[in-house]
Amino acid sequence: MQPPLSFAQARDLLARTPGVLAALLAGLDPRWLEANEGPGTFSPRDVVGHLIHGEDTDWIPRLEHLLEHGARVSFTPFEREGMRGRFDSAPIEELLARFARRRGESLARLEALALGPADATRPGLHPELGPVTLGQLIATWVVHDLTHLAQITRVLARARADEIGPWRAYFRLLEDRKPD
Amino acid sequence: MQPPLSFAQARDLLARTPGVLAALLAGLDPRWLEANEGPGTFSPRDVVGHLIHGEDTDWIPRLEHLLEHGARVSFTPFEREGMRGRFDSAPIEELLARFARRRGESLARLEALALGPADATRPGLHPELGPVTLGQLIATWVVHDLTHLAQITRVLARARADEIGPWRAYFRLLEDRKPD
Repeated sequence: MQPPLSFAQARDLLARTPGVLAALLAGLDPRWLEANEGPGTFSPRDVVGHLIHGEDTDWIPRLEHLLEHGARVSFTPFEREGMRGRFDSAPIEELLARFARRRGESLARLEALALGPADATRPGLHPELGPVTLGQLIATWVVHDLTHLAQITRVLARARADEIGPWRAYFRLLEDRKPD
Repeated sequence: MQPPLSFAQARDLLARTPGVLAALLAGLDPRWLEANEGPGTFSPRDVVGHLIHGEDTDWIPRLEHLLEHGARVSFTPFEREGMRGRFDSAPIEELLARFARRRGESLARLEALALGPADATRPGLHPELGPVTLGQLIATWVVHDLTHLAQITRVLARARADEIGPWRAYFRLLEDRKPD
């Protein structure tokens, strides 16, 4: 059993994501970057835009909202597709740099809040999910990064699924599934 | 529809994996590095060992075998668990450095072979799967890297699934599934 995620561990993981994305995506063939899993699903490029949009409107804004309003006022709903149209012509390197900068700003803000373990149970109100806590919000931020990294690598792999011949039998991850 | 993976694109992606892994895993909390998805599944640490073992016994050895024997002699079976016991006490940073070095050597060898598009159809023989081609072997190497990156990020996310409260409803990736 894992001990719960500390705020320091959360910051450590969150600080890694821009570097992971840059190592994987900067300079990658644009046709590969724009592969997706069908209508309504995200390409790797879409995911980077979605992550920038999350820094702008989701994680730190919700954290500050929770600290100010507790569970009395629910968070503003997050627009999962809010990146559409914002970054469509930008090169991936520009998106990666923007995400790295915005994430750095978010982490500086998080650090400045100097949260301690006792803050983890502070209550907030999600517009759909109802009562949540500050600790859950931070852990969700981490899990959200990781699941999108899993999505990007899965999408890149699946874009090549037709090229591996009989080896396909060994890769269950490549089979059709409903999009996340 | 994607054009088929070129050898240059394959080398480009294969060269990224050590940096992606280092950005994600170097210095990460060891309890997180050793999380897995249940008995018989790989932790992030196991995956790095498995990738080293692949460099040592799978990809370039099979490529050279195919170039020498064509489809007349099947590849040596690959031991999926062959890393067990090889690296058990090594710090993750040592594994990551070893993988980076071995991958660099593999790519130098691949470059030296100077394969051209016409080589993609050269035949080989897999011990379980039967007839394969050189192009499929190279594409599988790429897909194998990507699916293991997807696995690592999924395992890290799932290790925190109990900490996100009601947000869990938004993350289908976290739900129980049979291991890959």
